[in-house]
Amino acid sequence: MKALEEKILQDGQVRPGHILKVDSFLNHQIDIDFINEIGKEFQRLFADRPITKILTVEASGIGIACITAQYFHVPVVFAKKAQSLNLDGSLYTAKVQSYTHNRVYDVILSKKFLNADDHVLIIDDFLANGCAVTGLLDIIKSARATVEGVGIVIEKGFQSGGRELRERGINLKSLAIIKSMTDTAIEFEEQDE
Amino acid sequence: MKALEEKILQDGQVRPGHILKVDSFLNHQIDIDFINEIGKEFQRLFADRPITKILTVEASGIGIACITAQYFHVPVVFAKKAQSLNLDGSLYTAKVQSYTHNRVYDVILSKKFLNADDHVLIIDDFLANGCAVTGLLDIIKSARATVEGVGIVIEKGFQSGGRELRERGINLKSLAIIKSMTDTAIEFEEQDE
Repeated sequence: MKALEEKILQDGQVRPGHILKVDSFLNHQIDIDFINEIGKEFQRLFADRPITKILTVEASGIGIACITAQYFHVPVVFAKKAQSLNLDGSLYTAKVQSYTHNRVYDVILSKKFLNADDHVLIIDDFLANGCAVTGLLDIIKSARATVEGVGIVIEKGFQSGGRELRERGINLKSLAIIKSMTDTAIEFEEQDE
Repeated sequence: MKALEEKILQDGQVRPGHILKVDSFLNHQIDIDFINEIGKEFQRLFADRPITKILTVEASGIGIACITAQYFHVPVVFAKKAQSLNLDGSLYTAKVQSYTHNRVYDVILSKKFLNADDHVLIIDDFLANGCAVTGLLDIIKSARATVEGVGIVIEKGFQSGGRELRERGINLKSLAIIKSMTDTAIEFEEQDE
């Protein structure tokens, strides 16, 4: 998605540890008009799939998932990162290694919001080593639901998550794939529009 | 908002500890069409205010804030609940007592996303003792920005947060105010529509 690549080049900042800060429009401040363009693009890319639910994980995936869901006319469900007093009853759980926070956490989802009739699109802001998506795929498998696709805003193509998911046959679409990045330059992988 | 009261009566579940579960449409699964109605109502209630930014706190406020922001054509900024490797530079911080999780946590916001020119609408899903909103008000004060209002989906009127904010002169609008709730009945405060 050319407009996204241009936005990353304009507003993104590369920090040590392969961190790309895009917090001015994606995951701290959220540029709602731009996220609407992202939502439309996800709808275009997954239009042929019979999606019944969009699944993400808190926190930075939620806004993107909600805006995107408007184009699919389906509910969003977001997995939570820690046991909450408000979550009782039967839960799906999966373990996730956080790259950013350098720790392992549990993600949990109430069983009543995902079942074998569901056709699920996973949406998230970043894909690096793929651990968050793998955790969500584990939850979908536990629910015996169908994975229709994974939509990612920014994939770090120099980390292994995207390759591994594609090798598993997952229908993964990333709107921008970063081939390499340094303090002074960000290079994207060419993609068919 | 009558449609919200009806939805709470239909789908809400009261649990011990004055917990109201509305996770089927508001804060775990998100009914996007319904949240759009909520967003439109917030726009109606705060239409006379020159809002430049919507502020919320992760995680369950984010979806509501993003949908609502579409009607104001302004960006969303969400405060984060813990120090992240991705947040550097100057930060506003405030301490918040979580009722649900029974602990104190820091909320943080990057200084570059809020300044003295901003006119801010705070949006959140619940108001009980008001600690999350108070933390966000502290951040707005640190930024020397202007508070234009606080929009809450569900206020627990039997807890003190709402009264205290109104006594401070805050322009607080709650779409549903619960007067009392038990296992078998939920009563709402009458409001002018």
